[in-house]
Amino acid sequence: MRHVRIRIDLSYDGSNFHGWALQPGLRTVQAEVQRALGVALRRPEVWVTCAGRTDTGVHARGQVIHLDVAEEVLVASAGRAPVPPVAALVRKLNGILEPDVRVHEARVVPAEFDARFSALWRRYAYRVADAPAAYDPLTRHHVLHWPRPLDLATMNAAAADLLGLNDYTSFCKAREGATAIRRVTRLDWARDERGVATMTVVADAFCHSMVRSLVGCLLAIGEGRKDVTWAADMLRRASRSSDIHIASARGLTLEEVGYPSDDELAGRLLITRARRSQEEL
Amino acid sequence: MRHVRIRIDLSYDGSNFHGWALQPGLRTVQAEVQRALGVALRRPEVWVTCAGRTDTGVHARGQVIHLDVAEEVLVASAGRAPVPPVAALVRKLNGILEPDVRVHEARVVPAEFDARFSALWRRYAYRVADAPAAYDPLTRHHVLHWPRPLDLATMNAAAADLLGLNDYTSFCKAREGATAIRRVTRLDWARDERGVATMTVVADAFCHSMVRSLVGCLLAIGEGRKDVTWAADMLRRASRSSDIHIASARGLTLEEVGYPSDDELAGRLLITRARRSQEEL
Repeated sequence: MRHVRIRIDLSYDGSNFHGWALQPGLRTVQAEVQRALGVALRRPEVWVTCAGRTDTGVHARGQVIHLDVAEEVLVASAGRAPVPPVAALVRKLNGILEPDVRVHEARVVPAEFDARFSALWRRYAYRVADAPAAYDPLTRHHVLHWPRPLDLATMNAAAADLLGLNDYTSFCKAREGATAIRRVTRLDWARDERGVATMTVVADAFCHSMVRSLVGCLLAIGEGRKDVTWAADMLRRASRSSDIHIASARGLTLEEVGYPSDDELAGRLLITRARRSQEEL
Repeated sequence: MRHVRIRIDLSYDGSNFHGWALQPGLRTVQAEVQRALGVALRRPEVWVTCAGRTDTGVHARGQVIHLDVAEEVLVASAGRAPVPPVAALVRKLNGILEPDVRVHEARVVPAEFDARFSALWRRYAYRVADAPAAYDPLTRHHVLHWPRPLDLATMNAAAADLLGLNDYTSFCKAREGATAIRRVTRLDWARDERGVATMTVVADAFCHSMVRSLVGCLLAIGEGRKDVTWAADMLRRASRSSDIHIASARGLTLEEVGYPSDDELAGRLLITRARRSQEEL
């Protein structure tokens, strides 16, 4: 029986989920998505792999997963729908899933595509409204309301010190046997037209709670509780400190995951699997 | 006792409200705001007037209200806060109100300012995601998910026929003794970078359910159920028809209300009050 690998792009409001990964008895995105796939494909059990295992309360607008399906199962599930089987699958999933998870697209990809190990980079956004004029009840589930004004110029000066290939141990929850060496290629803050401050961060991968620790560090600098050099000091020290608060999950969204083109996939997979198989991505 | 008139700008997520206007036993925005003002100002009863009385489920990002307060009551309510009394009031209100209502600003205005009768125009937005790629769970409470693709070029051609000073009876729920003559100065659809279709409509005022009827009419044209000339036909006929569906409240947001400058307020008030005192604004 020939199997095909399917890539699915999806979004979720993390507010009412205990994160991505399966946890017995708790509502998680992985559990809901696997259950919906089981119903859509009429299989008792479906297993998926994702690009970024988000924590409790964290949102995603560009989560990517992959799964393998026997070709005849996929075709049979589409029934007589007048669209390709993957398009029929998208419609079915959106009909089965609760409204806080939406599927954008499903497509057949090369067998070498791996949602986790093929990823070249992940982009997260963290959103903060730091003045009453910017508070918006319509976006309150994914924008943190902050009671004091933030100085973005100072935060950006501090953020520049955190770029590059570094050991981010100070900003990670420790995991045994895992390195915290990551390459951060973008880290900056900007305001949108309503005044909401958004941090954009891009890295090859992130260790556990790294983005929220970076935010916690920069918020302390932005409201003047810490000096602009504090971020660099923390990074250099390379040990986890309780001085850095982990910012609320509410403001954090996984926005996009970058992959190589199809013909570069095989090479990429070998490199990453060897390097990171023991680690949190 | 000298009274001052206060203008307050606020936003709300209308999902869990039975609209703006007071209704015994139901949760309404007016009731919540008046209760919060009563607590903040330590008055048993506070009455406010708003720019646009939104229906059940309709949202607002730029609602405007006014109220009158004795100057000494306002000053006393601020206590020893190191900010002007109106800024202290904003902080207090945001502390008292549930998170689905947020106050942006409060300021003292001329006694001639009237949130309802001084308004020159109201701007509403209606948002529709008409393809899985544009579905976003993070904005699902104020963006309608639509199962069929919309042709915005055709909708804009039809919308152009609805502009100007017209009798909008075909698009209004009838009210005894009220005219449905309105001046619509803008009505068009555009897609944002994620593909969400947004209709923007600006008019001097709107009759009851007018925006949602305009949307219902244009959605039927946009998905090909009706011809592009149907909107103009409906307008010309000047009688309410059940052919026009009233679109869901979910996608509708009152975005902004325009007012004259302070020195033009007195003249404006006399004109509008004479013309519209019997009507829904």
